[in-house]
Amino acid sequence: MLWDHHCHALLAETAKSDLDRLARCLTEAPSTYPLEDLHHGVVFHQALAVMASRLDVSCETAAVERALASVDYADYCQRIFNEAGYARLLVDTGYTPMGAWSIDGMEKVLGIPIRKILRLETLAEKALTVARDFDDWIDRYQRTLKEARHDGYVGAKSIIAYRSGLHVVPVEETRARAQFVVMRQREATRLVDPDLLNYLLYLATPILMGQNLPLQFHTGFGDPDTDLLQGNPLLLRSYIEEFVSQGHRIALLHTYPYHREAGYLASVYPGVYLDVSLALPLAASGSSRILHEALELTPLSRLLFASDSHSRPESYFLAAKFFREGMNAFLDRTVTRHQVLASVAENWAHAVAKGNVERLYGIE
Amino acid sequence: MLWDHHCHALLAETAKSDLDRLARCLTEAPSTYPLEDLHHGVVFHQALAVMASRLDVSCETAAVERALASVDYADYCQRIFNEAGYARLLVDTGYTPMGAWSIDGMEKVLGIPIRKILRLETLAEKALTVARDFDDWIDRYQRTLKEARHDGYVGAKSIIAYRSGLHVVPVEETRARAQFVVMRQREATRLVDPDLLNYLLYLATPILMGQNLPLQFHTGFGDPDTDLLQGNPLLLRSYIEEFVSQGHRIALLHTYPYHREAGYLASVYPGVYLDVSLALPLAASGSSRILHEALELTPLSRLLFASDSHSRPESYFLAAKFFREGMNAFLDRTVTRHQVLASVAENWAHAVAKGNVERLYGIE
Amino acid sequence: MLWDHHCHALLAETAKSDLDRLARCLTEAPSTYPLEDLHHGVVFHQALAVMASRLDVSCETAAVERALASVDYADYCQRIFNEAGYARLLVDTGYTPMGAWSIDGMEKVLGIPIRKILRLETLAEKALTVARDFDDWIDRYQRTLKEARHDGYVGAKSIIAYRSGLHVVPVEETRARAQFVVMRQREATRLVDPDLLNYLLYLATPILMGQNLPLQFHTGFGDPDTDLLQGNPLLLRSYIEEFVSQGHRIALLHTYPYHREAGYLASVYPGVYLDVSLALPLAASGSSRILHEALELTPLSRLLFASDSHSRPESYFLAAKFFREGMNAFLDRTVTRHQVLASVAENWAHAVAKGNVERLYGIE
Repeated sequence: MLWDHHCHALLAETAKSDLDRLARCLTEAPSTYPLEDLHHGVVFHQALAVMASRLDVSCETAAVERALASVDYADYCQRIFNEAGYARLLVDTGYTPMGAWSIDGMEKVLGIPIRKILRLETLAEKALTVARDFDDWIDRYQRTLKEARHDGYVGAKSIIAYRSGLHVVPVEETRARAQFVVMRQREATRLVDPDLLNYLLYLATPILMGQNLPLQFHTGFGDPDTDLLQGNPLLLRSYIEEFVSQGHRIALLHTYPYHREAGYLASVYPGVYLDVSLALPLAASGSSRILHEALELTPLSRLLFASDSHSRPESYFLAAKFFREGMNAFLDRTVTRHQVLASVAENWAHAVAKGNVERLYGIE
Repeated sequence: MLWDHHCHALLAETAKSDLDRLARCLTEAPSTYPLEDLHHGVVFHQALAVMASRLDVSCETAAVERALASVDYADYCQRIFNEAGYARLLVDTGYTPMGAWSIDGMEKVLGIPIRKILRLETLAEKALTVARDFDDWIDRYQRTLKEARHDGYVGAKSIIAYRSGLHVVPVEETRARAQFVVMRQREATRLVDPDLLNYLLYLATPILMGQNLPLQFHTGFGDPDTDLLQGNPLLLRSYIEEFVSQGHRIALLHTYPYHREAGYLASVYPGVYLDVSLALPLAASGSSRILHEALELTPLSRLLFASDSHSRPESYFLAAKFFREGMNAFLDRTVTRHQVLASVAENWAHAVAKGNVERLYGIE
Repeated sequence: MLWDHHCHALLAETAKSDLDRLARCLTEAPSTYPLEDLHHGVVFHQALAVMASRLDVSCETAAVERALASVDYADYCQRIFNEAGYARLLVDTGYTPMGAWSIDGMEKVLGIPIRKILRLETLAEKALTVARDFDDWIDRYQRTLKEARHDGYVGAKSIIAYRSGLHVVPVEETRARAQFVVMRQREATRLVDPDLLNYLLYLATPILMGQNLPLQFHTGFGDPDTDLLQGNPLLLRSYIEEFVSQGHRIALLHTYPYHREAGYLASVYPGVYLDVSLALPLAASGSSRILHEALELTPLSRLLFASDSHSRPESYFLAAKFFREGMNAFLDRTVTRHQVLASVAENWAHAVAKGNVERLYGIE
């Protein structure tokens, strides 16, 4: 049984036999990236194999496409999620692929309870489209945040790493106000100004803490919109020092190739959690090594499972498969080489699959 | 037989059955970090197992505590250090846990010769408490340094990584003088000013070189007082270029997660040594991988063993065990896969366990 | 069969039994680095073993030297390159060891076709020695570049990482002009000014693109002339964003210890290729791990083989051997653990050994 603390929506039936969408959902490359190169990745071929074996056809693209076209898609998705062991999904509603099921639709099809994660920057950009002025904008942003728990959100997420980077700092309201004016003059709708992004993050934090909602941070690799040099979670140090000491809890998403650095943070600060999502499944051939490196310093009470998957069920399947294989190998070795009691290793297996998410997000 | 070129003092008998102290000495987390999370680390459980097997009880915390309470503690410590193969310890006297044995007491209990390492920043802070003015301060600092070899020290250590970071630069005396005035006005006792820290480091270096004393640098991870971004040993480049070319020798301590970077430095500069202490034992499950990565570029004549352990004997035991296991696996493979002669591999085993420390610190 | 897309020239017969040259060509350390430490590296001993087995003598230095002194050196070199499977070499003419064969001589001795790579900074420095003024200098630089394909070059290379670092930016002609004056006043012959280096890089790029010539970048480790902090390929981001979107193709050389970062770039940008040369063969004991880490995100259509070897044939031999061993292990696992079809894995083996170089450089 696996609780995924960070993923996105699944494509609805219309795209059920679109293998280009499969290739595109197993990469962080933009649409300008050659499809041909995506076909030269291990994860694409393993996803084909997952399909072929479930559809009982050969691994050839054409055979798989034909079989998918005539499959009962809802049943196919359910079987795959079921086989992968998914029991709960936390969906980031800030990114939804075109043609995806609604949260309700997905919950119904899969038969898996879904909880929502609120993306801060998306919320602020939406509020911006209707806000009269700075005060109205901030008011709308804060009001929605204050109702987050009540509105069914179990946590929030920041993608500030993609915009101005993880070296976050407090910003005076007057600076934010001035940048808002600049942004309005430019008729900009996308938040990219560091002052505004930082201001909004520091504004949101106490509101989330007041509702005991943890905050997820995109860290490490992602689409090329990110400057990976600004995605090192070590850059969050002063933010962590300030808020985590007051009881704030954060989850460092993805973290690769900074997963060792993230593990260090989890090992010395209360309230810091992490995952190696996205690398699982994308870095298929390295999935166990990456997980094991992340676990060098991370306490087993601080590792979370996430797939960061979207669009195709095979992506969720592989993330779960890689996580399980990597964890099994890790836990076996703790028993055989590090004299950890089998009962302790069993507790840890449970914790990383479910218990840690349950505790962090306060859900059952 | 193992020579540890960097460790700290051991707790005396009064704390002999305190398992919380065990958990706390197997982490770099501060006292505000939940004990519960420390119990979810591999290294804590392996330390329990080390105790249980030596005390002939089961691995349950309560059983271990009961057995420890009635053990002959000095004998227990001696047995563990003996079994781990320790033959010489270089103790950094700049950090001593509360309730520790004196150097003499520890030497007597363990039956192992101990040599001392002088910590620069601690020396400067002590001198500050009695110094009349800047000149008097610098004079006291330099006088103690000049007597270091004579006073039984075999090397020095800098923790500038913890204070202003490893991007060290020469500083004019006038700037240092001005910052000293500021520090006095604030009645500060802790050295944090970059100008003063750098000034003191550059002042110490030729004095150490004059006595052929190597300088250890804290690099890589440590307690959260450190900004890990400032702990990358590559930041030492200009210092290395300046002094190592003149015959100065430095040891990069810990290095994780920058152990590959440290290995690179050792591979292109004379006089640069390194260890993966602290990660061994803390990153228990990754100890062999980390050691092997450090050895990708590092010549076998430049790797040192250190535990960086303090407080509990089990910590020293695990550091030694992990180092030996990792080295054995490495050396075996150099013979079987890289056609290294068995006699060469044997020499290397001796060098990393003892010979390199002996040569670097000029001790027998 | 292996195509090496980046290497240097081989020493001619006069140095055939010089084992110090062997040790020196298996490191990036300068001549001031102790030879003794080089003898404590795995790669040196494995190179000795390669010699000993081909010369049918024991692995002792003296025996190997004696045998080498009387060997038919051209035949010996040819045998080693042949056994290693080399079928094509792309030689960077910007660095040639003292006493090396000419390109023609090397081609004849080895019986392997060689193509040339043009080093930008070397070209600019040569042009500088004869240029009357800035305009004449730039004119000579551009003219040679425009004739590159016609003159037999199949690609270019930049070592800007060694000089001002990989954070490259466009520079106005007026700034470049001003720095040229400064350089002339100082009678400098070595290009180190960031403005000039960046100006020349941005000037060269469209000229290379016009001839469909890819550009190699030195990244990652190298001799201590490089500040490794400035060698992170992530620093190239804005250059990549600007030119790769227009069809420019670049090869990130070496990349270690930033090979995962390089793999990320290849996975999200069209036209970005990489290798782990230099680490293969220098980081002998870690060669498979490093290659596997690089392949976590890199599509198999983007990995290249290079040895970056020079001087001694044993260096080329080991680079090829490590690459083949690492790739075989990797591809086997893609089949057994990731359900990749054997036919796909075979295509990938061909692509990384030859096909990718062929396509990138437009040679057959």
